[in-house]
Amino acid sequence: MAMDNKGWNASQLRNCDLQFDEIPRLHHNDPKVDELMSENKPVVVLGSNLAKSAEKWDLDYLERHMGESDFTVFQSKSHKFKYYDDKKVTSGDGFVPPTKKLDMKLPEFIKRLRAWKKGEDRLYLQQGLNNTVGPAIVHDFLNFDWNFCTGKQSKHNWGSLTSNLMLIGMEGNVTPCHYDEQENLFAQVHGFKRCILFPPDQFECLYPHPVHHPHDRQSMVDFDRPDYNKFPKFRQAKGFETVVGPGEVLYIPMYWWHHVESLMQGSYTVSVNFWYKGGPVSVSYPLKGHQKVAVMRNVEKMLLDVLQDPKEIPVLLRAMVLGRYTE
Amino acid sequence: MAMDNKGWNASQLRNCDLQFDEIPRLHHNDPKVDELMSENKPVVVLGSNLAKSAEKWDLDYLERHMGESDFTVFQSKSHKFKYYDDKKVTSGDGFVPPTKKLDMKLPEFIKRLRAWKKGEDRLYLQQGLNNTVGPAIVHDFLNFDWNFCTGKQSKHNWGSLTSNLMLIGMEGNVTPCHYDEQENLFAQVHGFKRCILFPPDQFECLYPHPVHHPHDRQSMVDFDRPDYNKFPKFRQAKGFETVVGPGEVLYIPMYWWHHVESLMQGSYTVSVNFWYKGGPVSVSYPLKGHQKVAVMRNVEKMLLDVLQDPKEIPVLLRAMVLGRYTE
Ligand SMILES: [Zn+2]
Ligand SMILES: [Zn+2]
Repeated sequence: MAMDNKGWNASQLRNCDLQFDEIPRLHHNDPKVDELMSENKPVVVLGSNLAKSAEKWDLDYLERHMGESDFTVFQSKSHKFKYYDDKKVTSGDGFVPPTKKLDMKLPEFIKRLRAWKKGEDRLYLQQGLNNTVGPAIVHDFLNFDWNFCTGKQSKHNWGSLTSNLMLIGMEGNVTPCHYDEQENLFAQVHGFKRCILFPPDQFECLYPHPVHHPHDRQSMVDFDRPDYNKFPKFRQAKGFETVVGPGEVLYIPMYWWHHVESLMQGSYTVSVNFWYKGGPVSVSYPLKGHQKVAVMRNVEKMLLDVLQDPKEIPVLLRAMVLGRYTE
Repeated sequence: MAMDNKGWNASQLRNCDLQFDEIPRLHHNDPKVDELMSENKPVVVLGSNLAKSAEKWDLDYLERHMGESDFTVFQSKSHKFKYYDDKKVTSGDGFVPPTKKLDMKLPEFIKRLRAWKKGEDRLYLQQGLNNTVGPAIVHDFLNFDWNFCTGKQSKHNWGSLTSNLMLIGMEGNVTPCHYDEQENLFAQVHGFKRCILFPPDQFECLYPHPVHHPHDRQSMVDFDRPDYNKFPKFRQAKGFETVVGPGEVLYIPMYWWHHVESLMQGSYTVSVNFWYKGGPVSVSYPLKGHQKVAVMRNVEKMLLDVLQDPKEIPVLLRAMVLGRYTE
């Protein structure tokens, strides 16, 4: 397979109808890094040591050190691993979970990952870094460059660190487009991931599921085969992309949409998320895109509270909007 | 002019594309009156003495007794008197008031009413009954059958009486379709008025202006020439109608839509509104139509509070609804 000196080539990227601008890729000393972060704009930070102690986290090392605990593994019949919230599944709503959540020991996961052939169910390990991961991994975790992320946290007024998630994915796995309600430093450890990001003000181009739906915060648009009749504004979505490799850290600002794919015909991927609560909210007008998203979420939550029945929400919203607030 | 024994005939009604059921017309002793009122359904009450003391309020009597105070009179170039809220007019929003609010003494008003010819500006007196109306009118007011309305108030758990409005209209004047946030006993005193009512759950067929618009609570649909492209569901609006004459009282439940027209080629009309606050709200599910209207009003008010700019509301609502909550 032809590779250029980046370690990957364009044929490994999935097809997408949209075209993207590049997310800036800057050296960790570059003052523009903090400029972008303070504007809540994504940036790839190069040359930091944030997850340097995890450089050695290949499958052999992990198998040797992560022990016999059960870890959370998702299984999917397709390449897509669309997250869903168990707590929002209600009996009789007809929701079919697109993935299966399994408890699996690491040796079993790695065996299946190595033996995997095209057409078989795919796996994606997504495990919080806690004391079940074994002393060697905890040691590496403690040796992350905490100065780096704590510095960003205080400089940009983020809230507390809430969790670190370790992700081990098969080549070609896709986390479909969604947004999170936290700030994220996304450290790539092994293999390459393509990340496509959209600002919060692209809400109307990305059509998130209703807030009370198990796929809350996920786009309803299938990036592989967008239904332009249902989602006409998706054509106008303006996104940014990058491919992150080992040692690189992508800042995914809170409420920014992100689609993440492990490159096809590449290796498995290992990544670690650093999730921080958002900072205190200062309100100035006009509201920023992410603040409007928060407003919309609150309206939808309030409507569920007051109507009690999710089926009544679309009826009420259509009555409120169609012909009155449409052009 | 041919009249049947009701005192009016169908040719005096304005054309409307819709067909209506009849609002029940019941004797004040009929127990069904209170059944309907307790279900928040409209009813015409016959034979009560609510405004019997106002039977003699013709133009001559009013001119003799209402004195030289200034009263509120609206002037309109068309037959429509669409209410607007001064406090919601903001500079630069391009709003053109459809009527002019004047202070006018009663003799001047009556002179112009009597001299009026087709094609000239129309007038509509709408004056709260207070101590400016002169001792004779106050005397008649005190002789209203307060037992009747206070009985309804306590039986149906209404809040306090907030005001009595006296209306003196020219033949053919129209108060376009709107709803009020109060219970209304509408006592007809002189002449005939056609009242078309729609239940609160017809909200989506009647397309009210945004809550922050000066025409808040008014339908955007022009009943004379409905724009079915903009307001397609108006065709499906299911309304009820009646014509009220002297001595008859129409109960207009809170949040019910109403269009009121003084019959064409009839006489001037005199009416008195008794407005009561709504009762304490008991919530049971599913919510009733009028409770959903209140929810929608609160969402729109909250959005204006938080966005500060009315122009941003449609943008946000469209992003929230189109493609996500539409079919
Ligand atoms: Zn995410
Ligand atoms: Zn009214």
